[in-house]
Amino acid sequence: MTDSITISVDAMGGDHAPRAVIHGAHLALKERKNTRFIFHGIKDQIEPLLEEFPALKAASIVRHADVVIAMDEKPSQALRKGKGTSSMWMTIQAVKDKEADVAISGGNTGALMAMATFCLRPMEGISRPGIAAIWPTLRSDIIVLDMGATIGADAQQLVDYAILGSALARALFDSDSPSVGLLNVGTEEVKGLESIKEAGKILTEASGAGFTYHGFVEGDDIGKGTVDVVVTEGFVGNIALKTAEGTARQVATYLRQSLKATLMSRIGALFASSALNALRRKMDPRTVNGGVFMGLNGIVIKSHGGTDEIGYKSALGLSYEMARSRLMDKVGDTMHRFPINRAAPEQPTDSEAKSA
Amino acid sequence: MTDSITISVDAMGGDHAPRAVIHGAHLALKERKNTRFIFHGIKDQIEPLLEEFPALKAASIVRHADVVIAMDEKPSQALRKGKGTSSMWMTIQAVKDKEADVAISGGNTGALMAMATFCLRPMEGISRPGIAAIWPTLRSDIIVLDMGATIGADAQQLVDYAILGSALARALFDSDSPSVGLLNVGTEEVKGLESIKEAGKILTEASGAGFTYHGFVEGDDIGKGTVDVVVTEGFVGNIALKTAEGTARQVATYLRQSLKATLMSRIGALFASSALNALRRKMDPRTVNGGVFMGLNGIVIKSHGGTDEIGYKSALGLSYEMARSRLMDKVGDTMHRFPINRAAPEQPTDSEAKSA
Repeated sequence: MTDSITISVDAMGGDHAPRAVIHGAHLALKERKNTRFIFHGIKDQIEPLLEEFPALKAASIVRHADVVIAMDEKPSQALRKGKGTSSMWMTIQAVKDKEADVAISGGNTGALMAMATFCLRPMEGISRPGIAAIWPTLRSDIIVLDMGATIGADAQQLVDYAILGSALARALFDSDSPSVGLLNVGTEEVKGLESIKEAGKILTEASGAGFTYHGFVEGDDIGKGTVDVVVTEGFVGNIALKTAEGTARQVATYLRQSLKATLMSRIGALFASSALNALRRKMDPRTVNGGVFMGLNGIVIKSHGGTDEIGYKSALGLSYEMARSRLMDKVGDTMHRFPINRAAPEQPTDSEAKSA
Repeated sequence: MTDSITISVDAMGGDHAPRAVIHGAHLALKERKNTRFIFHGIKDQIEPLLEEFPALKAASIVRHADVVIAMDEKPSQALRKGKGTSSMWMTIQAVKDKEADVAISGGNTGALMAMATFCLRPMEGISRPGIAAIWPTLRSDIIVLDMGATIGADAQQLVDYAILGSALARALFDSDSPSVGLLNVGTEEVKGLESIKEAGKILTEASGAGFTYHGFVEGDDIGKGTVDVVVTEGFVGNIALKTAEGTARQVATYLRQSLKATLMSRIGALFASSALNALRRKMDPRTVNGGVFMGLNGIVIKSHGGTDEIGYKSALGLSYEMARSRLMDKVGDTMHRFPINRAAPEQPTDSEAKSA
């Protein structure tokens, strides 16, 4: 049997916490039996839920935390209120203290990023962290980052995202030299922002050092899976992700309406029901749940706050795989192979995470 | 019978020009019989195509233009080469000269924007033009702009887009006070870029003057149709549009694969075939083809360059409706009702359109 993986869990994060979190952990444990959990939060709420699942209870520790960070608190408020004492902070602290391999929360993204940055600190050589999404495409899953950890990015920060995204692709997809594209409004060299053009020059020179630089890609290249890693600034990444989610929901609604339209179409839907159910599972946003905070001295996963136990199961499974595939070692190795000296890390400030 | 609408057409614009253009005009004329066309381009190529369609030939004038702007020419090059002489320039010039009600081209977007801006000039009170898309949503069609006329926008420019988009919504959707949202990464007031926050303040004060300000919207609000007009800066708008196109194609491919997977699903697809065909038509990107250049002294429509005659038919129909609904009057009226003095228009420069 392989060594166990310990996941530090903010049991109070998200709209349906702690119930959805504990039920999700029960499902995750059934799939990966050597998972161990440290749940942080209000004991009186967590422990009764664990009574339902003896196997999960046996694989878990509960650590009491009085303070719960609300979804609408500003990162600076959250830090003042919850540093050292909140379930969110304690969840991250367990990774810093090497008690857990990875931390996960479905709570307030801005607060989580601020606390993770403050507690774990950015890696040497990385100026600030990014949030990576694992995006299903026609070819295979790919990595897109930054999904909104920060608004705006200069050329060096885009290059940092390329390094971090490549490391994540190497860890998750067993690819030795993943392809990297810079998201832009046109593939001709003439177009786009200065920061993107400058990042393109740096990546062209560095191509081969743990990744293969593909060039510029456009919005529709994401769904095609043209490259393994799509790099963009956080505002654009967030808009792209949510626009894609909205479009997928829109098309699914059209399909449902079409199949209900006539008697013939309803009969057709019956015959095709198992295929249509497979499609529904494929398009279920809960099966791809989890943003990965990259660039810190430890792995932190953000689950969707509004998800249910199926969503938590996915995010916990992702957390497990990150730890098992030794993501942190791959990040270090990719940075080591990168030929260009990067700037020294800045001190993290609260304002950096404020906009996340 | 109503007065006819005259469309000035760049017969040489797009990958399949002039054949797809002329065939598209033939289809458009069948739907809207009081359309008149002025085709600009190489006579020896256009006239033989018109011989196939006597009704179209009778409704058309052909103006010879030797110079054709290539898809990969920079806007500045295109202006130097084609000012006054190219099919693209002459197409726009016909609107300036009041010979036509609206101009359309499937050519190079950056060149078209540069020429349109140079020839028609921005409207008084609008600092620079934007490109609006008509976006199908679960509720109804909505307007999203800017789709990439310019990269970056300050608060005043976002406000200009809100005015222009509202006017377009009033012209196309018969809505007296369309709702306007600013695209942002979160709906809380705390989030987002300074320019967006500042624009939000101005629009809050001006709400009621030809539009109703809704507040911030996120990427998934586009597909939901939360508001009638979504305002964003051009880089983000372009990425959002192409990401949505890519996602729609991705889901359509999944559906096709699912329905082919088993014998039962193939039987189901047969029963549901007319419903599935209706869905296919609904999702066909050719049926919503055409970006509208807003903020100039005249209407210019950009068709997708890669589209076929069906796409041109849609874009020509859109052109017709713009002219018929007196879009320019509605823009003037919306600007007139807006309570805040706007900055004087800048002189258009080539670099503004370079990135489009």
